[in-house]
This record gives sequence, structure tokens and C-alpha cells, in this order.
Amino acid sequence: MNKITLTTMVMIQCPESGQVLVQNRLRSSFKGLSFPGGHVEPGESLHDCAVREVAEETGLAVRDLQFCGFKHECWCETPNSEERRYFVFFYKTDDFSGTLMDTDEGQHFWSSLDELLLRKAEFTPFFEDYIPMFDGAHSEAFCTYPKPGEYDTREITYF
Amino acid sequence: MNKITLTTMVMIQCPESGQVLVQNRLRSSFKGLSFPGGHVEPGESLHDCAVREVAEETGLAVRDLQFCGFKHECWCETPNSEERRYFVFFYKTDDFSGTLMDTDEGQHFWSSLDELLLRKAEFTPFFEDYIPMFDGAHSEAFCTYPKPGEYDTREITYF
Repeated sequence: MNKITLTTMVMIQCPESGQVLVQNRLRSSFKGLSFPGGHVEPGESLHDCAVREVAEETGLAVRDLQFCGFKHECWCETPNSEERRYFVFFYKTDDFSGTLMDTDEGQHFWSSLDELLLRKAEFTPFFEDYIPMFDGAHSEAFCTYPKPGEYDTREITYF
Repeated sequence: MNKITLTTMVMIQCPESGQVLVQNRLRSSFKGLSFPGGHVEPGESLHDCAVREVAEETGLAVRDLQFCGFKHECWCETPNSEERRYFVFFYKTDDFSGTLMDTDEGQHFWSSLDELLLRKAEFTPFFEDYIPMFDGAHSEAFCTYPKPGEYDTREITYF
């Protein structure tokens, strides 16, 4: 079981307004609207990765993270190639402090979830799949590509 | 991020007695008391891995699995070697059917959790770390070995 990527994503919700912090990602391959997050570093827990990524990308210190499950993609680049998996571990919190800032990673703004869902055309790839994970109804979203090397046909199952 | 192993473990609880299903593992490297579970197969979700492993090892069909978080170990075999991680994704359920059987994997019996906790000397390695995950108070148990190649000193953090 090799070639597995581990990442995190955090939905930060303002306890007063109920709005969530949206990141407009500026980097090359995943431009668009998303929540902050990123790749785990060597020797790091998933929890600590989530806290660090939020701090680096937004300037905010988050506490009391609530785990919301995980999504993973599973695919082979060719019929005989080694399987790859890409994990996103989801967290949410309404406990944060600090001054919000924009970074090279992206620009940030607050939005209601309803208004965010009207902007699907601006989402980063797959972000639409992630949204249902934050309401606590699921623990796992599992996405496969039945035809190796073809990424237009995907099947997603929520558990 | 390579060399990551994905496994599952299931605590099956009898809704009438409250007892849990214990597996006395007979196989070489991890002999002792544990719960059923095992390695994910290619193209398989973690949820389906948990269901399949229980069926193969115990004869029981489990439904309505509740996700209880994950544990992972993180270590390097030498100071400069690639990091490795070993994940266990935990589930519990009280919804099952079928006839309980013993297999090559292990023998099975029902026990109260209290009685099980009195038998720590018979546990498989690390099973003691897993038990707190099933009560829902944590989402992640993260275990590191500060000295590469030395497995006597370990640090475990619960989030």
C-alpha cells in the first residue's frame, strides 16, 4: 500500500454570524474557492497539520477542532500500475483568534454556506464533494475512477 | 508521503448483554486479544474493508457501522530513511447477524469491556492504545518513536 497522500481541510465558522471562512486559492493546479488546509509534514499528526495549515495560510489560530471524517480518492494511472490514494481529513471549529490575512496561498473572505453553495462554478476541483462531510452525517467519502487513466468518470460513495 | 499502511478494526457489541466480541489472534506476529479487522484491499473503502474483514474472520455480517476515529503510528527505521505510517480506522456497531465462527485468524468470545481490560497482559501489541478510541471522546491517536529504529520509547497523543 504505497503512494498515499495525506492532507487536511478546516471549516472555520464564526460563532456570531454563522459565516464560514472561504479561501480563494491562487496557486496553479487547484485555483478556486475552498477552505484552508494542506499536506501533512513528516512526523506530524493530522490534527496538528490542520492547525498549522490554517495558521500559515490565514493567520488565524484555531482550537477545539471537531473531526468531520475523511474523503479519499483511489485510482490507478494505468491498468497495471500501483494504486494511489489521496486523503483529505476534515475538521471544523468556531474557536479561533488572530488577524485574518491573505497569503500567497489565497485570499480569504467570510460567506454564509448558502451563498457559498451558489458559487459552485468557482469551486476548486472536488470541493463540492467535501461540503457534505462538514455536517456530521457521514464519516467517509470514497471516490474511485473505474477506468484507469480516465478521470472524467468517477464514482463517489458516502458512508 | 509513501509507505503508508491502511487497516481497520471493529468493536461489535451485543445490544442485549453489552458484551463485546473479542478475537484471540493466533497468527504469528500479532498474537493475543484484539478486535477483528485487517488490511484494506485495492479499490476498497475503509468502511467496506471493515465489513469484509469481520465477515471473513468471524462469520458475522455487520451493518450500521459507527466511525470512531483513527490511530496512526509514524516512524523512521533509520535517521535518514523514508517515513512510514500505519493507520487503524476504528468502527463499532451493535447491528449484526450470522453465526459466529472461529477461523485461522483467531478464536472468538464475548466479554464485558471491564473484564477485557483486566487481561491487558494478553493483548496484542498496541491494542491497549486502541481501547480509548471506541468511546467517542477522541478522533485521532498519534504515536511516534522519537529515536529512529528504537521501538521501546514511544509517545502517544490523543486528539
